[in-house]
Amino acid sequence: MSGAIMSGTIMSGTKQVGGAAARRIVVVGGIAAGMSAASQARRRDPHCEVVVLQRESDISYSACGMPYNIGDPQRSLDDLVMLDAETARTQRGIDVRVRQLATAIDLAARQVRVRDLERDTQYDLPWDRLILATGAAAVMPPLPGIDLPGVHALRSLEDARRIKRQVRESAVRQAVVIGAGYIGMEMADILHQLDIAVVVIEKLDHVLPGFAPEIVRLAGQELARQGVPVMTGAALRSIEAQGSDLLVHAGAATHRAQLVVVSIGVRPNVELARGAGIALGASGAIATDDAMRTSAADVYAAGDCAEAWHRVLGRPAWIALGTTANKQGKVAGANAAGADERFGGIVGTAGFKLFDLEVARTGLGADEIARHGIDAVGAVSQHHSRARNYPGDAPLTTVVYAERHTGRLLGAQMIGAGTVAKRIDVFATALHAGMTLAQVEDLDLSYAPPFAPVYDPVLIAAGVGRKALARSAT
Amino acid sequence: MSGAIMSGTIMSGTKQVGGAAARRIVVVGGIAAGMSAASQARRRDPHCEVVVLQRESDISYSACGMPYNIGDPQRSLDDLVMLDAETARTQRGIDVRVRQLATAIDLAARQVRVRDLERDTQYDLPWDRLILATGAAAVMPPLPGIDLPGVHALRSLEDARRIKRQVRESAVRQAVVIGAGYIGMEMADILHQLDIAVVVIEKLDHVLPGFAPEIVRLAGQELARQGVPVMTGAALRSIEAQGSDLLVHAGAATHRAQLVVVSIGVRPNVELARGAGIALGASGAIATDDAMRTSAADVYAAGDCAEAWHRVLGRPAWIALGTTANKQGKVAGANAAGADERFGGIVGTAGFKLFDLEVARTGLGADEIARHGIDAVGAVSQHHSRARNYPGDAPLTTVVYAERHTGRLLGAQMIGAGTVAKRIDVFATALHAGMTLAQVEDLDLSYAPPFAPVYDPVLIAAGVGRKALARSAT
Repeated sequence: MSGAIMSGTIMSGTKQVGGAAARRIVVVGGIAAGMSAASQARRRDPHCEVVVLQRESDISYSACGMPYNIGDPQRSLDDLVMLDAETARTQRGIDVRVRQLATAIDLAARQVRVRDLERDTQYDLPWDRLILATGAAAVMPPLPGIDLPGVHALRSLEDARRIKRQVRESAVRQAVVIGAGYIGMEMADILHQLDIAVVVIEKLDHVLPGFAPEIVRLAGQELARQGVPVMTGAALRSIEAQGSDLLVHAGAATHRAQLVVVSIGVRPNVELARGAGIALGASGAIATDDAMRTSAADVYAAGDCAEAWHRVLGRPAWIALGTTANKQGKVAGANAAGADERFGGIVGTAGFKLFDLEVARTGLGADEIARHGIDAVGAVSQHHSRARNYPGDAPLTTVVYAERHTGRLLGAQMIGAGTVAKRIDVFATALHAGMTLAQVEDLDLSYAPPFAPVYDPVLIAAGVGRKALARSAT
Repeated sequence: MSGAIMSGTIMSGTKQVGGAAARRIVVVGGIAAGMSAASQARRRDPHCEVVVLQRESDISYSACGMPYNIGDPQRSLDDLVMLDAETARTQRGIDVRVRQLATAIDLAARQVRVRDLERDTQYDLPWDRLILATGAAAVMPPLPGIDLPGVHALRSLEDARRIKRQVRESAVRQAVVIGAGYIGMEMADILHQLDIAVVVIEKLDHVLPGFAPEIVRLAGQELARQGVPVMTGAALRSIEAQGSDLLVHAGAATHRAQLVVVSIGVRPNVELARGAGIALGASGAIATDDAMRTSAADVYAAGDCAEAWHRVLGRPAWIALGTTANKQGKVAGANAAGADERFGGIVGTAGFKLFDLEVARTGLGADEIARHGIDAVGAVSQHHSRARNYPGDAPLTTVVYAERHTGRLLGAQMIGAGTVAKRIDVFATALHAGMTLAQVEDLDLSYAPPFAPVYDPVLIAAGVGRKALARSAT
């Protein structure tokens, strides 16, 4: 951030003159986007008042770290808290109010109605700038038994505490994970490491929705190799309690478990925005421009509740991820404090660990390419993570997609027991730059036997993709 | 490569008509660039004759793999050979002639004079296209004792065999490595792993020439931590034999060793080209264009003997590395066979393992920035390889350089006990695209606790660099 200069400029522009009231910035939501916004606003304008309204008792925690923390009995979940409310107040001068639920926005009066969940009272809080960082919620199917004890989402730190407590204090021998996306896969990995017999249930006919068949197949092999059964094409029907056990009815089968984790997706929390008439985008999340402004004057949105500009699609999209939330929060906070920052957009990069493998993707998948009617070519390649015969060398599989008539890279996915996520970052950088596969193949990437073969898998994948493009043109 | 289409086109254009002689492509040099060129020419034009003249007995080996192979008693150095001469002849139809030294080129007569080192005879070989892949040689200072047994360069596979044989067969307890660049550091690492007491001698006042002081300091700390003494500011004076030992006199000190590895640099083998009046570039290596053509008609050059277009400098440069050699060889071979390929240029990317650390760089270092009179700003940042508290999280240190008035990224260097080389590749990709630090800071990079903190060190480094730029502008 060009903070050094910008904050100087802004400070002089917002100094209190003759005791005029300082600008009040109200942030609804106090996790990644919310606390980034609050901290950034404070930094940009030390004279403004920043109030954070957080429904939960916890603020500023790393939700992405929760599965791994649950898997490590030595660690406390408090490790994931970056900043507690007391420190935020005393050291950063942010008025953090926990257990406060914003229930309505009055745009005309410029105030937000707040329910104090602790005292069960209600009050109106005026704002000069409002930042919506209301996040996303786990989708919980309205099926019988979904509210039973032992059935958990994994979205809030409180969810994580409940799961970790149950694993520690009761005899969890069997678990069912419902949904085979990122969180489901991470939880299957973690629970398996904890010596709990895990079954994964997925409504679709394959794990890892949005990934290419080759990646899906290798992920499935890894799950099988680790002894984790996956029931695909199996929709959850109901859960019933039987003594201290849960019976999970999915598809035609019933699975006994003491712990159930539901991870079938998330949806943006947009009730507050919608109630105020703030525009939502086609994705259903809050529409924003690249300054993180919403359709309402002086109201910003950031994080899992908001859309982001997708640089590959050239249109807004909704992909709820922690990195994006942090970055959008910073931009929203800076701009609410008078700066003129821009969010650089997303390209759809994500990665996770799947037992002994890394899996990552960036850009568009085949499903998105089809949905947006893009004429594209895909190509699969296998190569090595390190030099041939170097210890730790492992096969990597890469899928690339490129636009047929231009050769422009559209997306890449990779799986293997080597450095995958940081290789996907090379593709992500190429997507930001709008490179063609030929340009990716020309990249001067690092090579030494402990890190890479002489032609990095990224270059091999681009070359194979370029050949596929050439064949498809004939 | 767009091989599928190109080769079809070319084949039809070069078919033998009425028994006309096929085109003969002669390649001088049979390692990375030479064999890449020969294989590619063969693939592009199956009717041409391809002759490879190789001075050594070995062809097509990975020189970069030699230190690591020496360190592994279980592996044979033959592991590093990608393709042997017999297979090249029978399966690829390449006329590989080993122990053949090209001594002169007659450009007018289109022939090369060859000394058969096996039979000690001489002959002239006519060519239609000539590819120079003569490589680079280790610089050996002309000092007393430099030719003693036990004193080695590490450039050819035969050098590696001699070193590995000596380590295996004689009692090597002490070794001296002369020169603290990539190869010197790798050899210090490897010899130390083999339980040999290593001393590193460096003429300059620091290890890792070309790296920033912060990287150099951390590399020095790692060497000290591993118990490898480094004598900086110590020029080699002479080596003498004393019984089965060698006494290495450097600076004011004398070091006893049984094995000495000299790795003070390499120089391009350009005698053959120079003798024929082929133009050399400012670097002293053979001047080439982006089609790998030299100043002489139908003569190409590729690999460690040739210059390459440096995309950051916007001018040719000479950086001898295996990746570049392979890529240039492919382009030279394709074009000698009638194609129209272009080499995409280099940005100066390199990496190596230093004991428990990875070290890598891309783009310009401070020395090059100064030499070319570029007005630049540098910034150092520390961050983490993984999420806070995630097992294996390690500190990473990054240095970035950017052009002062544009903010354009000029180079990056990184050191640490995490994924470094593949993070440097993100900077390398950004250099290819000509990105500013602000654009790098906007990259949508992968995040998950096992791989990265929420703000990847690449993003942190770009942000710190951007702040330094802003400060420097005030």
